[in-house]
Amino acid sequence: MLQLTKTDLPMHIIFENQYFYIEKEESQIPWLKVFTQEPHKELSELSAEVRSQLWEIVNIIEKEMIAYYKPTKINIASFANMLPRVHIHVMARFEDDNYYPNPMWGEKLRDNELYLPDEEKFFKRVFTTLQKYVQ
Amino acid sequence: MLQLTKTDLPMHIIFENQYFYIEKEESQIPWLKVFTQEPHKELSELSAEVRSQLWEIVNIIEKEMIAYYKPTKINIASFANMLPRVHIHVMARFEDDNYYPNPMWGEKLRDNELYLPDEEKFFKRVFTTLQKYVQ
Repeated sequence: MLQLTKTDLPMHIIFENQYFYIEKEESQIPWLKVFTQEPHKELSELSAEVRSQLWEIVNIIEKEMIAYYKPTKINIASFANMLPRVHIHVMARFEDDNYYPNPMWGEKLRDNELYLPDEEKFFKRVFTTLQKYVQ
Repeated sequence: MLQLTKTDLPMHIIFENQYFYIEKEESQIPWLKVFTQEPHKELSELSAEVRSQLWEIVNIIEKEMIAYYKPTKINIASFANMLPRVHIHVMARFEDDNYYPNPMWGEKLRDNELYLPDEEKFFKRVFTTLQKYVQ
């Protein structure tokens, strides 16, 4: 398999391999979305192996978010109700973000500015860890 | 380990073993919540084995919901922002439920009545399948 480097990827894609790609969601908070390359409606349609690797990727993103951003809480979700193509949202939440403690799909509660460390450095960390642990 | 039968459990608990319990959420839609017996704040704090079994349980619930209710889409979420004790929501969504296509935490869009098959039969199916496949 061709080994991509972070700079070969389109700007909003922060990792890609044969089975998955990871996209950044534009938001106030650190928010990544993990897609399977092959589109499926539901998680249970994935092979056990791909599903298990998907959750492993989510776990790696969660750990990197916790280490880098020290968030109040990690949120994870899979909806895809508008367009039925399953993908996993991984979000780092902060007690002073605009929706906390509501989910990001709930009522906006305030209009704060968050001062977070550089996201490019975070994306590079995620990319490097995934290159190492995910085939 | 003591083998419980479905009728030994409190009404809102539909399955329990050494590591997990599954609770029914009162809602218009079929909605189950999977908790670990040992409380944790984040999923990445679970051992790889328990985490993998947790996702296996979610997958079994998803497949049972699809087979029994034939929903428009399955939704899965882990928030626990109010009380930081990680658990997984598994929801069967229907295009005529009161929030669809919004997540259940989003804006309510209508005031419909859903006519769904008997939930007790569904809980028994989930219980039986989990007894069989989850230690």
